[in-house]
Amino acid sequence: MKKSLGVKTLVAPTPVFVVGTYDADGKPNIMTAAWGGICCSQPVCICVSLRKATYSYGNIVANQAFTVSLPSVTHVAAVDYAGLASGRDADKFAVAGLTAVRSELVNAPYVAEFPHVLECKLQHTLEIGLHTLFVGEVLDVKVDEECLDAKGNPDVEKTRPFAFIPGARLYYELGACVGKAFSLGKKLLKPE
Amino acid sequence: MKKSLGVKTLVAPTPVFVVGTYDADGKPNIMTAAWGGICCSQPVCICVSLRKATYSYGNIVANQAFTVSLPSVTHVAAVDYAGLASGRDADKFAVAGLTAVRSELVNAPYVAEFPHVLECKLQHTLEIGLHTLFVGEVLDVKVDEECLDAKGNPDVEKTRPFAFIPGARLYYELGACVGKAFSLGKKLLKPE
Repeated sequence: MKKSLGVKTLVAPTPVFVVGTYDADGKPNIMTAAWGGICCSQPVCICVSLRKATYSYGNIVANQAFTVSLPSVTHVAAVDYAGLASGRDADKFAVAGLTAVRSELVNAPYVAEFPHVLECKLQHTLEIGLHTLFVGEVLDVKVDEECLDAKGNPDVEKTRPFAFIPGARLYYELGACVGKAFSLGKKLLKPE
Repeated sequence: MKKSLGVKTLVAPTPVFVVGTYDADGKPNIMTAAWGGICCSQPVCICVSLRKATYSYGNIVANQAFTVSLPSVTHVAAVDYAGLASGRDADKFAVAGLTAVRSELVNAPYVAEFPHVLECKLQHTLEIGLHTLFVGEVLDVKVDEECLDAKGNPDVEKTRPFAFIPGARLYYELGACVGKAFSLGKKLLKPE
């Protein structure tokens, strides 16, 4: 029996994106965002939704650029901190012990210590309500070499990304692989 | 050392959304989508990006509504199938052995067997490229009662959602809880 929970931001899993920007003084900033994801395959685009009140919001508008760094579970405390503090008040890279790397493609920094990063040029801005959805075109994806699988794809058992679960407000790491996509369902696709 | 992988749809984890719609004949349809997520907290909105070529695309435009059903890992093969087949050619609910439930709030069906569903009214449409981003306002979230935690939130250890990993094209279930959000980082927020 399903119970109505009302109007709530409840889905699972959500990603943990660390959005990198520069402020007007060129100070690198990060913020953690769970409202986002890939939103187009061609051109490859990623969206992140931020509140106007965030420091990062103005930075993205000013620079028309941002990065998304995907942290490993080993950095969960630093990532949580980056979602609690504001770049107006703190140098979050310094407090979290992280290193800002200037993207060569867009005017935004990414996090050296995180194994998987995307460099993005702002393409669309959609005002929805409390949050504004920014669509960034992905100009490059960079991943630590030692975190790639035999085919050159990011191996989540090495990058070790984690998920945020709204409602319960918990972080979960990934568990076991449960099958191949675009494959498991084929037995249903052509039933005899 | 980071390696450039070029322009690719590589992030992790991505959610596994099963989007429910009715076609012009009132036949319920589902499709699996990994490009999506919550995109606003007030009003609560969720986005899903679909290719125009999909059957679901036209259904959403015609009905201005869709649902998102979040499957459990026990349904991974049915979910993969729903991403391979088209509602033009098949009754995916029937083939996958799933039950369509008519939403009382919007003109769209959700999946009875999946423990967590969202009923959505289309609010914005953003053409990006190959994919179109649909923003739906969430009118209700419904979750199987036995999958709620003591505070009434969905418990992912009971709903058992899973993630899609692009690139490697694998599904992963969630593993261990690695900490409380908006909590772990507090030790960095106010350093002595």
